[in-house]
Amino acid sequence: MPPLPPVTLTDVREAAARLKGVAHRTPVLTSRTLDGLVGARVFVKCENFQRVGAFKIRGAYNAAARLTPDQLARGIAAYSSGNHAQATALAARELGTSAVILMPEDAPRSKMAATAGYGAEIVTYDRYTQDRTALGEALAADRGLTLIPPYDHPDVIAGQGTATLELLEETGELDAVVAPVGGGGLMAGSAVAATALHPGVRMIGVEPEAGDDTRRSLESGERVTVPVPRTIADGQAIATPGEITFGINQRLLDSVELVSDEEIVAAMRFAFERLKIVLEPSGATGLAALLAGRIGKLPPRVGVIASGGNIDTARFTALLGAEGSTAGR
Amino acid sequence: MPPLPPVTLTDVREAAARLKGVAHRTPVLTSRTLDGLVGARVFVKCENFQRVGAFKIRGAYNAAARLTPDQLARGIAAYSSGNHAQATALAARELGTSAVILMPEDAPRSKMAATAGYGAEIVTYDRYTQDRTALGEALAADRGLTLIPPYDHPDVIAGQGTATLELLEETGELDAVVAPVGGGGLMAGSAVAATALHPGVRMIGVEPEAGDDTRRSLESGERVTVPVPRTIADGQAIATPGEITFGINQRLLDSVELVSDEEIVAAMRFAFERLKIVLEPSGATGLAALLAGRIGKLPPRVGVIASGGNIDTARFTALLGAEGSTAGR
Repeated sequence: MPPLPPVTLTDVREAAARLKGVAHRTPVLTSRTLDGLVGARVFVKCENFQRVGAFKIRGAYNAAARLTPDQLARGIAAYSSGNHAQATALAARELGTSAVILMPEDAPRSKMAATAGYGAEIVTYDRYTQDRTALGEALAADRGLTLIPPYDHPDVIAGQGTATLELLEETGELDAVVAPVGGGGLMAGSAVAATALHPGVRMIGVEPEAGDDTRRSLESGERVTVPVPRTIADGQAIATPGEITFGINQRLLDSVELVSDEEIVAAMRFAFERLKIVLEPSGATGLAALLAGRIGKLPPRVGVIASGGNIDTARFTALLGAEGSTAGR
Repeated sequence: MPPLPPVTLTDVREAAARLKGVAHRTPVLTSRTLDGLVGARVFVKCENFQRVGAFKIRGAYNAAARLTPDQLARGIAAYSSGNHAQATALAARELGTSAVILMPEDAPRSKMAATAGYGAEIVTYDRYTQDRTALGEALAADRGLTLIPPYDHPDVIAGQGTATLELLEETGELDAVVAPVGGGGLMAGSAVAATALHPGVRMIGVEPEAGDDTRRSLESGERVTVPVPRTIADGQAIATPGEITFGINQRLLDSVELVSDEEIVAAMRFAFERLKIVLEPSGATGLAALLAGRIGKLPPRVGVIASGGNIDTARFTALLGAEGSTAGR
C-alpha cells in the first residue's frame, strides 16, 4: 500500500488563505452551447484569467511563501521556459525578494520579456548541450537560492489545488472534475481537494497523445518515461510524471484520457468563437477531451480547468489560421 | 431647448428587472497591465460574454417584452446583418413567439446559421438593389409583425443601458464611462443610467474614424449623414445617428472620440494577449480609444464597455495575422 498522500485538504485550504489578495479568484464560465454539445452541465474554471495568465502563480507563490525568512531573503530560483518562470518571478516580487530564472537561450522573446518584467534575473543555457537540472542546482547552490520546482513539491501541489477548491466553492458538488496533466501538480492538488470534499467525484486527467507518460505510468503501476513529447501542448510536453504528484494521482485519479493536437486546436477555436476566451494549447486539453467525446458518457455536472491562456496572436494564427473557421457550420 | 429625454433611469431599472434570468450579468475585468499603460484604474464590462455574444439581447428583449400579448402573439421582426439579428431571434424564442429576420443574401453564413439556430425565419434581400427599410416595413405590415428597431427606440435604449447600470452597481462611482457609438443606443442608454446615478461622470463615446456621424452631428448641432463608412468596425458602420439616440446623446455626452482601424486591431490584440478575451472590432473601440491615448489625460476610475465578441477565427486571423504579434516587445 502506498504511503498516505503528503498533501491534504487542510494544506490546500491554508494555501488558499496565503494566496488571498495575491492570486485572482478567477471566474467560472458556463455556456448553453457547450452543455448542449457535450450533454452535461459544464463549469469552466478560467485560469487563463489568472495573474501571469495561468494557474502556476498559485503553486509558486504558496511554495515561496512557506520558506523561512532567511531562505526568502537569499532569493528563489526556477528553471522553466513556460508559465512557471513568470509565476516564480511574480512570487518573488510579491514577497519582496529576488528571483533567478534559468531559461533556454532560444525561449520566446515574449516570455523572457514578461519574466524580466516582473524583475527577475534571467540566466540562459543551451538546451541542446546543457542539462538544466544540473545547471539549476549548481546555480542555486552557488548563490544560496532556493529552487521552486514546477510541480513535484507538496507546497506547489497544495497551491495548484486551490483552483479546484475555488471551483467547488462556487459550483457546489460536481460529479466529475477534468484537468490537464503535465507534471501532475494541478491534477494532484485538484484531486486532493475535490475527493476530500466530495468522495464520489470522478477525477479525470487529460494528456496530449504524444505526452501520455502519466497514463502509461498508471497502466504500469510505476512511473515510466516516454520519448520527449512532440505536441503543441507545450505545458504538457513532459516525459515522466513527478514522484510526489504520481503518488497522489495513482491513488486519486479515475482515469487519464488522451487528446490529439487536432482536437486541442478545435477546442481552442471553440473557446474563441463560442466562449470568447483565449486558451493556450495546454489550457484547452480538458475542454478538448469533453468536446471530442474522449471521456464517454458524461455525468450531469462536470467541472473543467482551463489552465492557461498564454499564447500570442502570431502563434494562435499559425495554429488555427490554415484550417479556417467552423463557426456556425 | 430640446425636449426631455424619453428614457429615464427608472426605465433602465425596469428593463434590468425584465432581463433578469434572460441576459447574463457579465463580468467586469481589470488588468494591472492595462491600468499601467493608460494611467487609470480601468473596469472592462465584458458584454462579449453576453448571450448572442453582444449587448444587443438587452435592448431587443426589453423592447419585445413590452409588446402587448396580441402583438407578441403575431410575432416580431428585425432587419440586421449583425448582432441585432441574433438578439431579436433569441428574444422571440425566450418570449415564446416567432421572429422573421431580414438579412442581406451575402451575410456571413455563420451569422445566418446562428440566427436560424434560435428558430427565426430568415428572409434575404439584395443589399445592392433593394431598400431594407422599405422591405422590412412591407414584410411587417403584410404579416402583422412588430419591427424591433436596432437602436432608435426608447425600450431598446433602456435595455442597452442596463449594461452600464450593472457596471456601476459593481464598481461604484466612476469618473468616466467609455462606450462605442454606432446607432447610439448603447451610448444613450449608458448615459441615461450613469448621469442619473452620478451627475459628475464624463460620458465618452467612441466611433471609428470612417463612421464619425455622431461626432459630426454633435459639432453641427443636428443629425448629419456621412458617406457609407468603410471600417472593420461593422457594428458601427452607420451613416446617420438615430433620432431619439442623438437627442439623448446630444444632451448627455461630453465628447465622441475617433479611432482608426489600426488602433482597433491593436486593441483586439491587446485584449487577446493580455486580457485573454475575444473582442470583435466594434467591441474593441472603447479599449482602443484608451490604449491609443485618444481621450487625453484620464481621470482615476474609468469604465469601458467591451460591447461584443462575435468574430470567427478566420476573420480574426485575416485582421491580425499579417501584422504579427507585439506581445512582450
